[in-house]
Amino acid sequence: MKVVTFGEIMLRLNPFGYERFAQAESFCASYAGAEANVAVSLSCFGLDAELVTRVPAHEIGEAALNAVRRYGVSVSHCLRGGDRLGLYFLEKGASQRGGKVIYDRAGSAIATASRDSFDWRTILAGADWFHITGITPALSEELAGACLDAVRAAKEMGITVSMDLNYRAKLWPYERAREAYLSLLPYVDYCKDPLDYGDGESDPAVLSARMICDFSLRAVAVTHRKTHTASDHTWSATVYTEDGAYTSREYEMHVVDRVGGGDSFSAGWIYSLLHGMPPCEAVEFATAASALKHSIEGDYNLVSVDEVNALLSGGAAGRVQR
Amino acid sequence: MKVVTFGEIMLRLNPFGYERFAQAESFCASYAGAEANVAVSLSCFGLDAELVTRVPAHEIGEAALNAVRRYGVSVSHCLRGGDRLGLYFLEKGASQRGGKVIYDRAGSAIATASRDSFDWRTILAGADWFHITGITPALSEELAGACLDAVRAAKEMGITVSMDLNYRAKLWPYERAREAYLSLLPYVDYCKDPLDYGDGESDPAVLSARMICDFSLRAVAVTHRKTHTASDHTWSATVYTEDGAYTSREYEMHVVDRVGGGDSFSAGWIYSLLHGMPPCEAVEFATAASALKHSIEGDYNLVSVDEVNALLSGGAAGRVQR
Amino acid sequence: MKVVTFGEIMLRLNPFGYERFAQAESFCASYAGAEANVAVSLSCFGLDAELVTRVPAHEIGEAALNAVRRYGVSVSHCLRGGDRLGLYFLEKGASQRGGKVIYDRAGSAIATASRDSFDWRTILAGADWFHITGITPALSEELAGACLDAVRAAKEMGITVSMDLNYRAKLWPYERAREAYLSLLPYVDYCKDPLDYGDGESDPAVLSARMICDFSLRAVAVTHRKTHTASDHTWSATVYTEDGAYTSREYEMHVVDRVGGGDSFSAGWIYSLLHGMPPCEAVEFATAASALKHSIEGDYNLVSVDEVNALLSGGAAGRVQR
Amino acid sequence: MKVVTFGEIMLRLNPFGYERFAQAESFCASYAGAEANVAVSLSCFGLDAELVTRVPAHEIGEAALNAVRRYGVSVSHCLRGGDRLGLYFLEKGASQRGGKVIYDRAGSAIATASRDSFDWRTILAGADWFHITGITPALSEELAGACLDAVRAAKEMGITVSMDLNYRAKLWPYERAREAYLSLLPYVDYCKDPLDYGDGESDPAVLSARMICDFSLRAVAVTHRKTHTASDHTWSATVYTEDGAYTSREYEMHVVDRVGGGDSFSAGWIYSLLHGMPPCEAVEFATAASALKHSIEGDYNLVSVDEVNALLSGGAAGRVQR
Amino acid sequence: MKVVTFGEIMLRLNPFGYERFAQAESFCASYAGAEANVAVSLSCFGLDAELVTRVPAHEIGEAALNAVRRYGVSVSHCLRGGDRLGLYFLEKGASQRGGKVIYDRAGSAIATASRDSFDWRTILAGADWFHITGITPALSEELAGACLDAVRAAKEMGITVSMDLNYRAKLWPYERAREAYLSLLPYVDYCKDPLDYGDGESDPAVLSARMICDFSLRAVAVTHRKTHTASDHTWSATVYTEDGAYTSREYEMHVVDRVGGGDSFSAGWIYSLLHGMPPCEAVEFATAASALKHSIEGDYNLVSVDEVNALLSGGAAGRVQR
Amino acid sequence: MKVVTFGEIMLRLNPFGYERFAQAESFCASYAGAEANVAVSLSCFGLDAELVTRVPAHEIGEAALNAVRRYGVSVSHCLRGGDRLGLYFLEKGASQRGGKVIYDRAGSAIATASRDSFDWRTILAGADWFHITGITPALSEELAGACLDAVRAAKEMGITVSMDLNYRAKLWPYERAREAYLSLLPYVDYCKDPLDYGDGESDPAVLSARMICDFSLRAVAVTHRKTHTASDHTWSATVYTEDGAYTSREYEMHVVDRVGGGDSFSAGWIYSLLHGMPPCEAVEFATAASALKHSIEGDYNLVSVDEVNALLSGGAAGRVQR
Repeated sequence: MKVVTFGEIMLRLNPFGYERFAQAESFCASYAGAEANVAVSLSCFGLDAELVTRVPAHEIGEAALNAVRRYGVSVSHCLRGGDRLGLYFLEKGASQRGGKVIYDRAGSAIATASRDSFDWRTILAGADWFHITGITPALSEELAGACLDAVRAAKEMGITVSMDLNYRAKLWPYERAREAYLSLLPYVDYCKDPLDYGDGESDPAVLSARMICDFSLRAVAVTHRKTHTASDHTWSATVYTEDGAYTSREYEMHVVDRVGGGDSFSAGWIYSLLHGMPPCEAVEFATAASALKHSIEGDYNLVSVDEVNALLSGGAAGRVQR
Repeated sequence: MKVVTFGEIMLRLNPFGYERFAQAESFCASYAGAEANVAVSLSCFGLDAELVTRVPAHEIGEAALNAVRRYGVSVSHCLRGGDRLGLYFLEKGASQRGGKVIYDRAGSAIATASRDSFDWRTILAGADWFHITGITPALSEELAGACLDAVRAAKEMGITVSMDLNYRAKLWPYERAREAYLSLLPYVDYCKDPLDYGDGESDPAVLSARMICDFSLRAVAVTHRKTHTASDHTWSATVYTEDGAYTSREYEMHVVDRVGGGDSFSAGWIYSLLHGMPPCEAVEFATAASALKHSIEGDYNLVSVDEVNALLSGGAAGRVQR
Repeated sequence: MKVVTFGEIMLRLNPFGYERFAQAESFCASYAGAEANVAVSLSCFGLDAELVTRVPAHEIGEAALNAVRRYGVSVSHCLRGGDRLGLYFLEKGASQRGGKVIYDRAGSAIATASRDSFDWRTILAGADWFHITGITPALSEELAGACLDAVRAAKEMGITVSMDLNYRAKLWPYERAREAYLSLLPYVDYCKDPLDYGDGESDPAVLSARMICDFSLRAVAVTHRKTHTASDHTWSATVYTEDGAYTSREYEMHVVDRVGGGDSFSAGWIYSLLHGMPPCEAVEFATAASALKHSIEGDYNLVSVDEVNALLSGGAAGRVQR
Repeated sequence: MKVVTFGEIMLRLNPFGYERFAQAESFCASYAGAEANVAVSLSCFGLDAELVTRVPAHEIGEAALNAVRRYGVSVSHCLRGGDRLGLYFLEKGASQRGGKVIYDRAGSAIATASRDSFDWRTILAGADWFHITGITPALSEELAGACLDAVRAAKEMGITVSMDLNYRAKLWPYERAREAYLSLLPYVDYCKDPLDYGDGESDPAVLSARMICDFSLRAVAVTHRKTHTASDHTWSATVYTEDGAYTSREYEMHVVDRVGGGDSFSAGWIYSLLHGMPPCEAVEFATAASALKHSIEGDYNLVSVDEVNALLSGGAAGRVQR
Repeated sequence: MKVVTFGEIMLRLNPFGYERFAQAESFCASYAGAEANVAVSLSCFGLDAELVTRVPAHEIGEAALNAVRRYGVSVSHCLRGGDRLGLYFLEKGASQRGGKVIYDRAGSAIATASRDSFDWRTILAGADWFHITGITPALSEELAGACLDAVRAAKEMGITVSMDLNYRAKLWPYERAREAYLSLLPYVDYCKDPLDYGDGESDPAVLSARMICDFSLRAVAVTHRKTHTASDHTWSATVYTEDGAYTSREYEMHVVDRVGGGDSFSAGWIYSLLHGMPPCEAVEFATAASALKHSIEGDYNLVSVDEVNALLSGGAAGRVQR
Repeated sequence: MKVVTFGEIMLRLNPFGYERFAQAESFCASYAGAEANVAVSLSCFGLDAELVTRVPAHEIGEAALNAVRRYGVSVSHCLRGGDRLGLYFLEKGASQRGGKVIYDRAGSAIATASRDSFDWRTILAGADWFHITGITPALSEELAGACLDAVRAAKEMGITVSMDLNYRAKLWPYERAREAYLSLLPYVDYCKDPLDYGDGESDPAVLSARMICDFSLRAVAVTHRKTHTASDHTWSATVYTEDGAYTSREYEMHVVDRVGGGDSFSAGWIYSLLHGMPPCEAVEFATAASALKHSIEGDYNLVSVDEVNALLSGGAAGRVQR
């Protein structure tokens, strides 16, 4: 089973341990992005995963592709060009001090790609699933167009489509985001995050029901994070379908690295749906997978299906496996 | 607004992470001291801060000054001379294992400075506030004299004076410390830590009231630390004034580095007083600031006023800021 | 007082911090093994400790001996020979993600040692105590024989013998292990872990009573670990004697490194018994010692008797000692 | 153009910088082997490269495959099984102190693979070139058989075959090695290293001529290393063909890491031959490529064709490219 | 004596040691730029140095200013604003493999500053010297204007002006650069690098003479680098004045870090001129200073005047000073 | 064969790689001293070696003893007491920039030891050789007395005595040093470094001959270091005896770490003399051993006799040993 994702991959720079930006004399360097994260997690689950993106034709661009290739993600349709790789700085929080992210992604290779540089019929040939997030259409008009082309092609080719709305206020106002979401959702089968219709309604159950109805969605997923301190979160999720709402168990987590938590949920959900799990199992699998993500350094959820199942079966949580 | 502090700056050597001294093949090297810590925190709050000290005329001495200069602290009245920089070894505790500090500060450049090498009229020109701790007079008779000269000059020049008694049993017996405190307190406006009058009384409320009366103090601050394990502390503070006692909210902290916690409280308190906050706000600001300190590696409280306020306003505690 | 231990010392390779194996670009390298861990802990308690083992005659083999020699353990009867040093890979767990150990110890220098290469009369001369674990006889028939020779010689020489059954399913089936245990236990005075007689009985109190009776044991110790997550454990122990059961206080631990926890209990128990503590004190000393181990990186419990006592006396737990 | 290689991939553990084994508290971990090194270099040159090997079905085994996958090498025909990954320890030399390698590869996953577990017709489908070294047949009788099967299949499928004799005295006596070489050479087109016929002849020119005649080889390559100190080598090579000998220019190298030097020559030679370079150009390309390898940490020659050409064109050697 | 410089400060990211970009899992992070480098070196020489620049109003921007502040450089006229800090990636070369720089500086805070945001009369008050490089006017039209404003103001205020042409082909074609140079040189007193008049003349002696004549320059300096390999350079310089050419001694250097070599020459030259050294001494001081730079990690030349003099006096070169 | 040495062991703090003190955010921590270095080298050569010293009764003091114990050196007669461990900061030089050492050893545990705290009859029982350097008597009057007691006891007990004059101008003027040397030399058999008689004579051959005559020395050794740059030294030595002068071959060294070079010569010389080598062989062995030292990080010469012999036999210099 093959899943294709489409989005930006950035250089992630974070100080070691709990150092603040002001103290850092070096940065851990990794390469990540919402869609790349999903692709890596799916590849670790044993699926064929491919990331479609554009990187500059220099060593830092190649290193970004190497980073996902290392975990088995195909990059055979990636484009080279543009001037720079987007990047973001991440400072981990601890206790009462929250984490910080500084984005520096304007003018990146993918943000300056043209809509027609992606030949979706070719790219999606052989794919079973296509996944995007709401970040990609936010990067440029051209990319918003490319996303539309992609989901349309996927639909026509009979490929299941999932989308994580993943709204980022730093990238665009919700008004513009909503417009893009509305253009894309008709082609989407599974959506993470409820749509804010802008009429004041904020109950995820109500919004999900409306989305399912309006866009013939098969399900809407919502994750629940309670941030006690930067070091301790509670994590769970609900999946809404026509038939009802399915809420996972709740995990009390000591957070090692919370970035990529939502993406790991998406990957877990896609995996479980591709394997025919019913919603009640799917939400448990996806939530357990993403709980594990919070214990792993970096954006990627480097866990196997066996490890997710071990957590679900309860016995192994936190034990040393010899 | 300009604050001057006076005291020793030492080389701090601590093993990486949770390594014990016996395991360490390298040490993190930073430069710190109670008064330097206060100065750095104030500079991070946006004030003009200056550290007055003496370092040996070699590269390690200069590195100590560079360390505070990096965060904007002025060192323009620092002296060069003497044979060595004081230093201390710090082993972090974890869980049931407490932390350890080994001091090696005897014979340091500042401890061997002569009283008359500091020209306080010149040093304090333009200052709004002067801060010392009880460590400086403990280092030598000459320094005790220099402290007295300093607070007298400050008083005459209309500069507000604060003092953190900060009693250290390894440096001197309380009898000698009390004598020094008694000579300095008449010139002090704000005092951290209650004075042990030696008559068996130990209630901080009673002691503070007496101190306020005896030395015309404007306020006395006391911090409260509950050490559940080396990794988990509860932290709060009370400020006593003529008008009553003001106790801050309490923070449950996962401790990243507890050294400098008291100093960060002093800095927060000085900042809030210089900005005219009433005692009830001042104690909250200072306590929040010092709660954040416990999440930061090293002695310095590298947080901005905005970050303290974000914690106080409650919304942002522990969230990632994107 | 001199304690001799006999067993394998391996190269331990673990990724830094919470990195997964898949992410590791370097490994922390240390040298450890159940019996070496006991010897190092005893040496840190101030006893004469000696490790008897066999390492290959190359630099990695010597480095293993250097590792225990550093902490004062004698290696004067260690043999050189064989082709390789056994090793194990350790990935630390965190939160919901459990730790992982991958052993690569087959064909090691000790596993290929012949039974008659150890001259126990000479080795044990001057010893007060001899300690083995159930891992050593599991490594080869020859080593099982050597263990038998050793405990017989110890018995004849009037040396107290302790054994930590330490069953490892990856090394042998319980049927074979039980046979070895049954051959060794008649020479053992103190045993850690209850014997599974294979008749369905699993209550440690019942099993311990039977062992004490069957093998004239002076006591049987059982540790209790509750694994809430990989980061938080509860730890306590019970010592069973003819006169009754003695259960220690319980420690809520933030786990820095849990490997070697059981070995540190053994060392604490041996120390307390050699110093004539009654069972109720011995179980407290051993449990406190091993609680401290969980706060220390690596297999070794690098704590002093003073530190254990400080935890027992309660005052110092988690405080910074200046 | 696609090249397939077949051989062992090991965990390489080397102390940081110039530390000796006795000093190392951590090891750089990478994954390498003669054939893996060739595959990675070819992939960096832009060819399709595939490594055929067998790794244990655990995380360290997967990490080995990830290591080559990161640089684009296909591992789609790799087998999982066996107990362990072979490994080697490397201590870098400096000045008068030579480097050291300690192998620990006995019983590895590949060494315990059976001859018939490799289906060469399927594996080699679509390949243009097949490369082995003399290390693989040294690992076991079964692997020697597998090598024979592989080169025979390659020959039948019209695939060019190259072999680096790469004799290792620690693995087998030359008598046994010679036997294996003699069985394989009839299927080989290009050979690195002259064969020692065992009759006292040692002149590479004479030996190469004889080999070309005896086995219808198209060329024999010999590299020349002069080791002034561990830090300074001179490097060049000669290619012998029926038409004569072609010797490259000589490079005075400051050695960063010499391991993999010969493998990088093989890769450079294969690349140049696949691109139709005449022997005189091929030897220059391969020698320049392998000179660059000596400036790179690790076994892999992570250089592009452009970088090799830049060195050959002379202009850029050692300049900063901005 | 006070020197003001004006230019960009960037985040410099370089892999540790000799790692290639493709291997880097972390980057050393420092903050540098041609003019910042000059300011830091001058401050280490004991002069008052100030850097005028613009950084984004976030933690990475502040960290850049902290970096120079640490070494005593004033940043009191620096502006905050814009979206990003420019950055560059640096891979060190070794032996036959040249170093590599990848710039990512477009759209930086300084490049998007407006010409009139700099009030040169205020900024330059009290300065004795003003220094720019040809990089600043290359960054934008506005900055080219700001440079012109600055040198004009300096001239009017009687401040000596130096300029390092420092042509970078990646930033602009020489035609545009020449135009900028021609507009600025009338206000310059000391120039590093000869101007390419575009008429085919390339002899630095001829060009320098013409420049001295055309722009009433007091001297033109030219550095000479011979790159034997990336690890070994020969370094010297010539200063041309109306009275003749003065060439320094030549240094055979083992290169630790070559970036900032030219800037360290500028700083050495400015220092020597401010201290009234004749050209023959000035060129020796500046060349010795910059030879030392090549032995230091990072862009900054962290050496004292005493250290430069020790090298010049010859006795101390390479000895350990105890 | 057993060798006892007597002297200070210090904490050595050096920045990583080629960082300057001003840049260091961490220090490599090791424990070293002239006599400890000799003891470790002898232990690595397979002799029984013991270090007699005094360290403070805290964890840093113990860590110093652990450091030599790790390499097999006995510390059974070491004293605990005093306030601090002496320390020194080391900055490595490179190319034109010389290394730097900052000592901070005043008031150390050993420097404040009393003469009568060492019971030499007990300490030296069973020893074959006793070695001191001229540093120990320089530390205090009491220690000068202890050295005298030691060499007298050794002489009486028939133990061979060697001394490395090792004059350090920072510790005492030569006048005082000479006095101490003159008091000790009558008990010395082998001396490294010629004595400056203060009469203007400086030819080592003449001085050695006079010393041999005056003090009945068996030999005087002199090492020759030519410092081309901090990175490249030439190294050789001469041994003067009654029968003539024996000069070793000369080594061109790339210096990894030059500290401890002289100590490693002493150890090599002692080893060769204890094994009955004639002067011409002894000087070669000692020089080769100390040439190897320069390729090793830290003060200790961690090489085996086999490695020295391999260098002497010439074949292996700089080759990788597989």
